[in-house]
Amino acid sequence: MPSKTTSINTFCLDEDNLHEECGVFGILGHDDASALTALGLHALQHRGQESAGIVSFDKTQFHSERHMGLVGDHFTNPETLAKLPGTSALGHVRYSTTGDTVLRNVQPLFAELTVGGIAIAHNGNITNGLTLREELIANGAICQSTSDTEVVLHLIARSKQEKAPRRFVDAITQLEGAYSMVAMTRSKLIATRDKNGIRPLVYGELDGKPIFASETCALDIIGAKFVRDVKNGEVIVCELQADGSIIVTSSFPFGKKDERLCLFEYVYFARPDSVVSGRSVYTARKRMGINLAKQAPLEADVIVPVPDGGTPAAIGFSQASGIPFEYGIIRNHYVGRTFIEPSQQIRALGVKLKLSANREQIEGKRVVLIDDSIVRGTTSLKIVQMVRDAGAKEVHLRVACPMIKFSDYYGIDTPDPEKLLANQYKTLDEMRQYIGVDSLEFLLIDGLYDAICGHKRNNDKPQFTDHYFTGDYPTPLEDLKNLDKSKHNKTSLLKEAG
Amino acid sequence: MPSKTTSINTFCLDEDNLHEECGVFGILGHDDASALTALGLHALQHRGQESAGIVSFDKTQFHSERHMGLVGDHFTNPETLAKLPGTSALGHVRYSTTGDTVLRNVQPLFAELTVGGIAIAHNGNITNGLTLREELIANGAICQSTSDTEVVLHLIARSKQEKAPRRFVDAITQLEGAYSMVAMTRSKLIATRDKNGIRPLVYGELDGKPIFASETCALDIIGAKFVRDVKNGEVIVCELQADGSIIVTSSFPFGKKDERLCLFEYVYFARPDSVVSGRSVYTARKRMGINLAKQAPLEADVIVPVPDGGTPAAIGFSQASGIPFEYGIIRNHYVGRTFIEPSQQIRALGVKLKLSANREQIEGKRVVLIDDSIVRGTTSLKIVQMVRDAGAKEVHLRVACPMIKFSDYYGIDTPDPEKLLANQYKTLDEMRQYIGVDSLEFLLIDGLYDAICGHKRNNDKPQFTDHYFTGDYPTPLEDLKNLDKSKHNKTSLLKEAG
Amino acid sequence: MPSKTTSINTFCLDEDNLHEECGVFGILGHDDASALTALGLHALQHRGQESAGIVSFDKTQFHSERHMGLVGDHFTNPETLAKLPGTSALGHVRYSTTGDTVLRNVQPLFAELTVGGIAIAHNGNITNGLTLREELIANGAICQSTSDTEVVLHLIARSKQEKAPRRFVDAITQLEGAYSMVAMTRSKLIATRDKNGIRPLVYGELDGKPIFASETCALDIIGAKFVRDVKNGEVIVCELQADGSIIVTSSFPFGKKDERLCLFEYVYFARPDSVVSGRSVYTARKRMGINLAKQAPLEADVIVPVPDGGTPAAIGFSQASGIPFEYGIIRNHYVGRTFIEPSQQIRALGVKLKLSANREQIEGKRVVLIDDSIVRGTTSLKIVQMVRDAGAKEVHLRVACPMIKFSDYYGIDTPDPEKLLANQYKTLDEMRQYIGVDSLEFLLIDGLYDAICGHKRNNDKPQFTDHYFTGDYPTPLEDLKNLDKSKHNKTSLLKEAG
Amino acid sequence: MPSKTTSINTFCLDEDNLHEECGVFGILGHDDASALTALGLHALQHRGQESAGIVSFDKTQFHSERHMGLVGDHFTNPETLAKLPGTSALGHVRYSTTGDTVLRNVQPLFAELTVGGIAIAHNGNITNGLTLREELIANGAICQSTSDTEVVLHLIARSKQEKAPRRFVDAITQLEGAYSMVAMTRSKLIATRDKNGIRPLVYGELDGKPIFASETCALDIIGAKFVRDVKNGEVIVCELQADGSIIVTSSFPFGKKDERLCLFEYVYFARPDSVVSGRSVYTARKRMGINLAKQAPLEADVIVPVPDGGTPAAIGFSQASGIPFEYGIIRNHYVGRTFIEPSQQIRALGVKLKLSANREQIEGKRVVLIDDSIVRGTTSLKIVQMVRDAGAKEVHLRVACPMIKFSDYYGIDTPDPEKLLANQYKTLDEMRQYIGVDSLEFLLIDGLYDAICGHKRNNDKPQFTDHYFTGDYPTPLEDLKNLDKSKHNKTSLLKEAG
Repeated sequence: MPSKTTSINTFCLDEDNLHEECGVFGILGHDDASALTALGLHALQHRGQESAGIVSFDKTQFHSERHMGLVGDHFTNPETLAKLPGTSALGHVRYSTTGDTVLRNVQPLFAELTVGGIAIAHNGNITNGLTLREELIANGAICQSTSDTEVVLHLIARSKQEKAPRRFVDAITQLEGAYSMVAMTRSKLIATRDKNGIRPLVYGELDGKPIFASETCALDIIGAKFVRDVKNGEVIVCELQADGSIIVTSSFPFGKKDERLCLFEYVYFARPDSVVSGRSVYTARKRMGINLAKQAPLEADVIVPVPDGGTPAAIGFSQASGIPFEYGIIRNHYVGRTFIEPSQQIRALGVKLKLSANREQIEGKRVVLIDDSIVRGTTSLKIVQMVRDAGAKEVHLRVACPMIKFSDYYGIDTPDPEKLLANQYKTLDEMRQYIGVDSLEFLLIDGLYDAICGHKRNNDKPQFTDHYFTGDYPTPLEDLKNLDKSKHNKTSLLKEAG
Repeated sequence: MPSKTTSINTFCLDEDNLHEECGVFGILGHDDASALTALGLHALQHRGQESAGIVSFDKTQFHSERHMGLVGDHFTNPETLAKLPGTSALGHVRYSTTGDTVLRNVQPLFAELTVGGIAIAHNGNITNGLTLREELIANGAICQSTSDTEVVLHLIARSKQEKAPRRFVDAITQLEGAYSMVAMTRSKLIATRDKNGIRPLVYGELDGKPIFASETCALDIIGAKFVRDVKNGEVIVCELQADGSIIVTSSFPFGKKDERLCLFEYVYFARPDSVVSGRSVYTARKRMGINLAKQAPLEADVIVPVPDGGTPAAIGFSQASGIPFEYGIIRNHYVGRTFIEPSQQIRALGVKLKLSANREQIEGKRVVLIDDSIVRGTTSLKIVQMVRDAGAKEVHLRVACPMIKFSDYYGIDTPDPEKLLANQYKTLDEMRQYIGVDSLEFLLIDGLYDAICGHKRNNDKPQFTDHYFTGDYPTPLEDLKNLDKSKHNKTSLLKEAG
Repeated sequence: MPSKTTSINTFCLDEDNLHEECGVFGILGHDDASALTALGLHALQHRGQESAGIVSFDKTQFHSERHMGLVGDHFTNPETLAKLPGTSALGHVRYSTTGDTVLRNVQPLFAELTVGGIAIAHNGNITNGLTLREELIANGAICQSTSDTEVVLHLIARSKQEKAPRRFVDAITQLEGAYSMVAMTRSKLIATRDKNGIRPLVYGELDGKPIFASETCALDIIGAKFVRDVKNGEVIVCELQADGSIIVTSSFPFGKKDERLCLFEYVYFARPDSVVSGRSVYTARKRMGINLAKQAPLEADVIVPVPDGGTPAAIGFSQASGIPFEYGIIRNHYVGRTFIEPSQQIRALGVKLKLSANREQIEGKRVVLIDDSIVRGTTSLKIVQMVRDAGAKEVHLRVACPMIKFSDYYGIDTPDPEKLLANQYKTLDEMRQYIGVDSLEFLLIDGLYDAICGHKRNNDKPQFTDHYFTGDYPTPLEDLKNLDKSKHNKTSLLKEAG
Repeated sequence: MPSKTTSINTFCLDEDNLHEECGVFGILGHDDASALTALGLHALQHRGQESAGIVSFDKTQFHSERHMGLVGDHFTNPETLAKLPGTSALGHVRYSTTGDTVLRNVQPLFAELTVGGIAIAHNGNITNGLTLREELIANGAICQSTSDTEVVLHLIARSKQEKAPRRFVDAITQLEGAYSMVAMTRSKLIATRDKNGIRPLVYGELDGKPIFASETCALDIIGAKFVRDVKNGEVIVCELQADGSIIVTSSFPFGKKDERLCLFEYVYFARPDSVVSGRSVYTARKRMGINLAKQAPLEADVIVPVPDGGTPAAIGFSQASGIPFEYGIIRNHYVGRTFIEPSQQIRALGVKLKLSANREQIEGKRVVLIDDSIVRGTTSLKIVQMVRDAGAKEVHLRVACPMIKFSDYYGIDTPDPEKLLANQYKTLDEMRQYIGVDSLEFLLIDGLYDAICGHKRNNDKPQFTDHYFTGDYPTPLEDLKNLDKSKHNKTSLLKEAG
């Protein structure tokens, strides 16, 4: 038997990254609704790899398939899709921010109302979800999951309004926080984004049928047309008519205000080929690299991206600096779960499961590593050591976003603030020493804003949500205030596997 | 490839039997709560083979494991039991009467209340369950399952009472039908039987800790002491005190009345070694055979039970008649699911998967087959043919209960009334011809009553529930009246596997 | 967590029983070959529950499905049978006598010869198998399994004969021990029994197509006709002709001698409805009970079989003695694998998982338990205690075969001789005290012979194989002599799961 | 239900790529042998994704775990590694070139010899394997698999030599073709490469213990030291001594000759961070791009690699041409198995599951696509169309190796020659038209040789194996001559799943 059984996670790099919670996809009135939804979710897989679910409606009944694992693990099975008949479908991929990785929490969630069933898929986080949950339980609601999405479902079920869209508005009026949400009823698809529009949601069309998806890449994969972004604070209701036509109506129940999209969609979450709020993600990232090269130039022999997040910025940095871009770090595409670590000390083995140094491009060279962001810095440390072991003469690190200093409460899984690198060390030089590089620079907030929208941050009225850098939270955080109370209540919750 | 793929169910005999829906087992304050519950459920396995579930409470949290399949398939796994820590546990085995064999419906069901969690396990059927369910949905409740037990959970959650036992009484006050139910809260075990006491429930004790179980055999397997039956209409609350002692209180919220236990518990459901309402099931069945021999004597060479249900009655018949008892039909204990039927006509093959004729005990003999009951008669037909094929000179059939003519609505899965043998044929002789026997007799209702309680049926005030024989239903059947309406609503329900 | 995790095997009773290793079934030229083979194996399931395999031939290729578990677990699946096309099929069920319960050992085994493929299914044990195996390995053979059947396959493959039947005879000429074997080639089914005919094998017919099976019950289940027993030392070759007709030839390559079938087939292994070597197994067992009643009469109130093996003898004992037969012990049909034992001492819990006392038939009574055999006595002990706990006034044990004193080497899994009850205690009275009964008697060997064939044992030329009682082994035991050497070699064998 | 169920493989691009069959890894005398082997195989996963196996030896017994799927799917499980105790281990990853994807074929294969067990792991293909197999079967060998590795095992088992290393040499003397093979006995690790050294094999060291692996990346992942390549025609025997020390001996049983490594290791198979025969794979590929830019220059706006194979050449092309390198095609890392294709025509959907166009980098631009190789061209066609759909003004394709015109018989899975693009069309211009590009160029053979070794092809004595480009096969192809005969024999082979 192995003399020690320390396990090494091959997702170790991801462990020091931020995680988006969810991706959503819905389509109405299309003959291939479930298959298209499966394909759309596959394109959105980067937004959540823990579980995937699809609910369809076949003019009589709702059908649901929800599974732990990747979309391709289950929804590629013809038998699974055959269990999802009908012309409308709603899908969801999810990464859990809590330890509650159980099937009960997999979305879309469903409720039967007197007027018929309703399914909901949600991307974001309701910042008064636990508070609302307690009120509901006190009023006799039975909660099956720990998901804030179930709270929305209860609010819809308990609304005194008759029609589903009005119940839906009734429910979201009570919500605070970030949500891009799609609901499906017997004849309708209803999409909304919160007042700030923190999480993205796009409106597309295939064969004249409406689609809502978290990113444009989900439209591209099926050849659907991009119509426009769902606007912040907007509610779009698509209703399938008896003749197969679809009536689309839009409303702004809370009035209109300026959008404040989450910056991290550009920095890290969205796929590089997506266009978010009218801007190419790849181009924004490349421009972050260009601005970083301008902000913190240096003499070096080679620009090496930390795969895969750092690649567009590294190309930008290389082009702006004239220093050659090379794959000095190679990524292993066959990533399993965890490996048993052999007993003897093999430095940085965890990293090596996923990344390996390409010695000939590094040995004897002054290397500039480009990464998209640094959370705790634990992985950066190992990568730098691996690059030094491969014989680099100098190692410099350039990070394509500002220092992360604050927690997120809008659907990004962030570690405790005290574990963030930028909070563990007071000065840039201390961080540099910890990571073990010859120089370290972070892109400044104005450089980031400029890379994305061509303007500095408007400090009076910021164009984006950027609290993780600035502490400037765009909404109240009610649950946070009530946290002790709500925690107590949570302990009586039933734990159940799958 | 097999030229035909007709499948043959090895449970084919069971298919023509009646099915009990459930068995329950709960224990409070015992260090081995989950393991004992698993053992108790194993002893109650004959009451439900489709799924099994256990909920435990470890002084902080509730834990739940619910699985499709037999108790021994899952709850013998140390890892599964390790997920059920704590000193109180509630378990349930289930046979589904509907097609909805999904994990969501597996009991015990659980709800979080403001005052803490509650789990419920139920044996029986609520005859106004669908009606209550519609009212709940109209008032904003979200139902996850199609089980009537969830209705009870919602009634508890919505009760305006504060304490769990009062909420429980509040809920059951609204129920009609048959229910033997056990609920578990953070400190209590609450047991009740409906006003008529249609389904059994016994109260036992192990190491001074209270147990509730559907039958005494669940006490025997763990060496627990039988205390008494839970009475019809009684609510027993056992509360664990801080010092480990337990306070037991009993109440009769609807007053007291005479019990009317379901006769079929004696005829078919209960295990022969159980003592139900003070009477040995085996002895009752043997006396059914004795009374049958007296009622319908004949000359014959051998008494052959239809295994296993007919065995005790066959022994009684043999002893009363003096005709030797022999195993003329052998049962195959290795029963799988379904077999592909080869193409050529092999008569009675379905039966032969489970039963086979013991030719030497049958050939050239006058055979009396003893069966516990006949539902549709389809299996009897095949068994008789198999016995004739083995060379029987004469085949007589004696059935140890009366003709079944009416549907049950109290937790027994009965076919449509028009499919019952006794409704398909007008006369006993027509039935005899259909089954293909030389003579056919059913035990009369008075003989059955006498076998169980030593008295004829008191027609003014029957001692038992016997509607399947007599049409005398002990409660109103509200859902039945509302059936069309409720069916409509059911169609929008989400279907989901596992 | 359960405070102790001792596990209790629900097969605990079986653990103290003897096990037969195998059952075989083959059919040639029938359109439903695989489905019929699956059904036949289902009927033979009592001969081996660990694994099952079927090989079919579709005029071009051989196909194989081999699985751990019961026949009904896998071969009821239409997809599995669809993978076994063709008009000839050979099947096998197996109980492993060694710890090597791996898929590689599951039969039928297959080899490709220059003249085409051959599959073999074997019931018995080759007493010079390990010796032959070593010779083969020394001559460059690669053995994949630890099964003695593979040795036969190598002997066939290495035979210098050209035709498969001659190669087959070439191979079996080198074997010692017990074997009933069926081989299947592209056009033939070849069946043989060893010189003594220790294990049974019958020849049947369905729709004019030949079948070989371990017992007649496998013919009965599919409605096939019993033709005759394969004789000891006989080789029957059935060859499918181009026109669909079949030519059957019989030979006795080692000459003819008297059969010495294994007595335990009558005592315990064969199904009661089978006819073995012309004698009904059920009748033989019943007569064992009759002879036992004559040999060791007593005064008592009730005859109680130890289920299920003791039942026919108990009926015979009851009829001979006039003491009533009752089901004083009830068997739980839902037998899983193992249960966690709760911590407190619950006497005889292991037994109770499978058996339970039927108190009302036992309390205050003088009980005579009838069992088929006693191996180590450990289970008898627990059953007796359970019966005493249920209130028996006296408990007597009558065993329907002689004391077991010697190991078997012909396919029966026997414990080390020193663990046998009859070797652990010198006198009958010591055994009686150990088991805790008021009286104990074993059927004498002459009584057993008489029950089966109507004659005493012919000590000069015994009619049956009875070494476990008498030490009279019918063949040399070469491996036993070479055991140390062969054990050494065995240790280098590769262990691999399933 | 989806109206059509055409399935789309997300590995579709791979489908038009060549596949290497195997990777091997062995280590002797190390306490963490199995865990290190699992890690090494993980690094070699790109050489075979169908199955993985490890055999270990614990000084008494051999242990084996072989599974379908990725290394990370099974060998990351502590329970699996616990089943592989010992200080020596041999592992293998495999991609099947035939349809026989069954567990029986998963390596390492094992045989028990009189002198002890031996396990073999093999990368390559024996070109007289079927011929040898027939001879073996004619001489009584029983073959369990269709793998040519089993043939080697039989040759070892049948060798008249006594010692394992001599038996090994005896066996390989009879082989033709390509093989890099590692064998493990109770005390030894034996490594060899065929006379030409067609497949790579490196010799490394960790903590003083010898390791053999297909590529250096398997040494890097565990921090092992690269010692040297195993030479073509060399046999290295490492023997563990009683004191834990290891004696290493090298021999060249067939004499020495110049190496002729397979060019495709550089072009496509080996990981870019591996050093094969002293040359960095990444650098070689980048130089292919440089040479291609020199050979076929053009005016364009952007260089876009076809991920991932084309990336290093694209970087080289960009640097040599001065045209910017951009990620114009994005790869989806979450690749499952197959997806159901919706009914309506969505052009190039198969490709889009894995790749997507990054519109902003393509629209209105003159795009140069760089790919590593073209097999049938079917995927190139779809990628080009996807790039055109994204708005490219011009699309040019540059391929970093010559036209593939001949089949491989040395362990690369190639389609039938007539399906190769270079054989389907006569002229480069016809190919260009088929693929739909504005210009198409293949790197010439001399440019390829120069990129790898700095010299043109030596046509008298080529430095590498390059038959797929030139038809110049380095060994006789005996099986090919005997193909019809051997095919006939193959049809009687048993087919068995897993």
